[in-house]
Amino acid sequence: MSVKSNPFRATLAKMHPYVPGEQPQGGKFIKLNTNENPYPAPPAVTAAIISAAQAGLQRYPDPTASSFRRQAAETLGLPGPDWILAGNGSDEILTILVRAMVGEGERLRLPYPSYILYRTLADIQGADWEQTEFDKDWKLPAAFGEASSDGEQKLRLAFLPNPNSPSGTVLTPDEVLEIAERLPCPLVVDEAYADFAETNCLKLVEQNENIFITRTLSKSYALAGLRFGFVIAQPHRIAELGKIKDSYNCDALSIAAATAAVGSSEWLADNVQKIKATRRRMEQKLTEIGFKVTPSQANFVWCQHPHKSHKEMYEQLKKSQILVRYMDFPEWGDGLRISVGTDDQVDACLMLLAQM
Amino acid sequence: MSVKSNPFRATLAKMHPYVPGEQPQGGKFIKLNTNENPYPAPPAVTAAIISAAQAGLQRYPDPTASSFRRQAAETLGLPGPDWILAGNGSDEILTILVRAMVGEGERLRLPYPSYILYRTLADIQGADWEQTEFDKDWKLPAAFGEASSDGEQKLRLAFLPNPNSPSGTVLTPDEVLEIAERLPCPLVVDEAYADFAETNCLKLVEQNENIFITRTLSKSYALAGLRFGFVIAQPHRIAELGKIKDSYNCDALSIAAATAAVGSSEWLADNVQKIKATRRRMEQKLTEIGFKVTPSQANFVWCQHPHKSHKEMYEQLKKSQILVRYMDFPEWGDGLRISVGTDDQVDACLMLLAQM
Repeated sequence: MSVKSNPFRATLAKMHPYVPGEQPQGGKFIKLNTNENPYPAPPAVTAAIISAAQAGLQRYPDPTASSFRRQAAETLGLPGPDWILAGNGSDEILTILVRAMVGEGERLRLPYPSYILYRTLADIQGADWEQTEFDKDWKLPAAFGEASSDGEQKLRLAFLPNPNSPSGTVLTPDEVLEIAERLPCPLVVDEAYADFAETNCLKLVEQNENIFITRTLSKSYALAGLRFGFVIAQPHRIAELGKIKDSYNCDALSIAAATAAVGSSEWLADNVQKIKATRRRMEQKLTEIGFKVTPSQANFVWCQHPHKSHKEMYEQLKKSQILVRYMDFPEWGDGLRISVGTDDQVDACLMLLAQM
Repeated sequence: MSVKSNPFRATLAKMHPYVPGEQPQGGKFIKLNTNENPYPAPPAVTAAIISAAQAGLQRYPDPTASSFRRQAAETLGLPGPDWILAGNGSDEILTILVRAMVGEGERLRLPYPSYILYRTLADIQGADWEQTEFDKDWKLPAAFGEASSDGEQKLRLAFLPNPNSPSGTVLTPDEVLEIAERLPCPLVVDEAYADFAETNCLKLVEQNENIFITRTLSKSYALAGLRFGFVIAQPHRIAELGKIKDSYNCDALSIAAATAAVGSSEWLADNVQKIKATRRRMEQKLTEIGFKVTPSQANFVWCQHPHKSHKEMYEQLKKSQILVRYMDFPEWGDGLRISVGTDDQVDACLMLLAQM
């Protein structure tokens, strides 16, 4: 075929585009399907946005989001702002990591079931991916930290969502460090949900130059609409990643908003407290209804019913304007991933599930 | 070297990162170096941002920026919204185009001197690039539309900034169509500055499925701080590009702001009128001072002095808190690219230049 009749790279024809959860733009859905925070963002965020908008947007933004990086380094207790690269959502951060380290014909590794987007990012690069299946208790087999079984040097990057989705389970920092040390390549620890967990791996980046930790403001800071994420790693690694990003990848409004958000530590503590309390209630009630519930350290709960159809429950809930995530992992199984909403939202969902 | 001692793709070590114009975050600089609009964005933009911020940002934004695409299609007279893909600045759009069409070891083409970023995007992909030099009157030799001289099929994409930077010159739509028809690959017409020009190539996308037109709100809509750009092409091409973008690449605030901006047609006409009037004054006065001035159809003016040092003039202006862009194109020459500011800003710059 000529370049002009199909100008796209062969990898695009083969790939399966990532399909995010439904985002109805109208209607009155109770949205418990994409792990958004049900509460509004810290009040300082709105004020920062209005102030930035009124100051005018005719100039290019700060290319490296310095104000955000300074505040985040302070909030998280990092050695300095140069341990952070900010991006247009952690999606962009994950994209930058793959583009920086995984070339055509090379390979990335991920656990399964986990975040399918990593596979899509490999597909776009024309790279391969391989999966290590969690065991039935969501422990990760030792194979995840080993060289590829075919002995080739193609493995370039491993992704570990921690807490994982859909399970909400975590590996301890000790377990993560042990994996990073054994792996023949760098490890990205995707901590999108870490603010809802009992532990995180922030301290590991100081011990290991091949650990990259990604964070997002979408979940714990209630800013999914803002698109702001970042990666934490040693400064020489951050500098190299900076070559890949667009010059002005974060806009002036989101930099101002993100800076205000990460400065709102009290708000965060309160919000996480509320989410955790509701999560406990969800776990109890789902168990009472008859679900097998995986104890969660994230802002969602993964549950499977021993004999009812997950797909049908999802569809019945949708008819009642309640969206949860039906997830089917081929050769593994299916279930429902239900985001932690407000108490009222969660009660409405649980009441209907109890009647099914 | 082991993957762990240097985990980055070989192409990163070799590449020259793109260096954007200086963006001092403090101080009282008169900024005439990165072609920002000196006037604030349309008033409807601020109102739209405040309203979106107050509505809350806890939910994910519309993945395809539908409201923007509907309004832009109407404003630009396109057949429909599915002829548009929106992105986080036209930088992201250019990145998507390269990732979609140019693989490792393949090649893109650009004119010279023009926008150096295209080369960086090829470098990041591990791809090659080749340049066709403008002649001394900024006409583009026929070679730009021909197959590569080595006869290989590696050429996958050609970029044509129109108006060009640093020259501000344009090719007519007829000339562009003729190039697109001769080229063995698709043509991206980068129309970042087209609102300041007498012609544009919008109509060509309906005639040719291999023409992609990119636009930005950074220049004519005074929204460099917002990061919003888009590409216009036939719907089957747009659909394929959509596989590459991050799921939520535009945030809720920028979608609201961009929708309000492209609906502000009267504002745009007024703003462009002002810029053009100031541009005419700049061209006249720079000529009087002794510069050779290239007639511009953009919001900047390219000028070269027959015997004074451009670098020294740039440095002297900077000492007086006026930033212009000193550009040195190896094996071609150097000069000053001065953005069209307000009349007062431009007068301050011209006064100093006249004294040098």
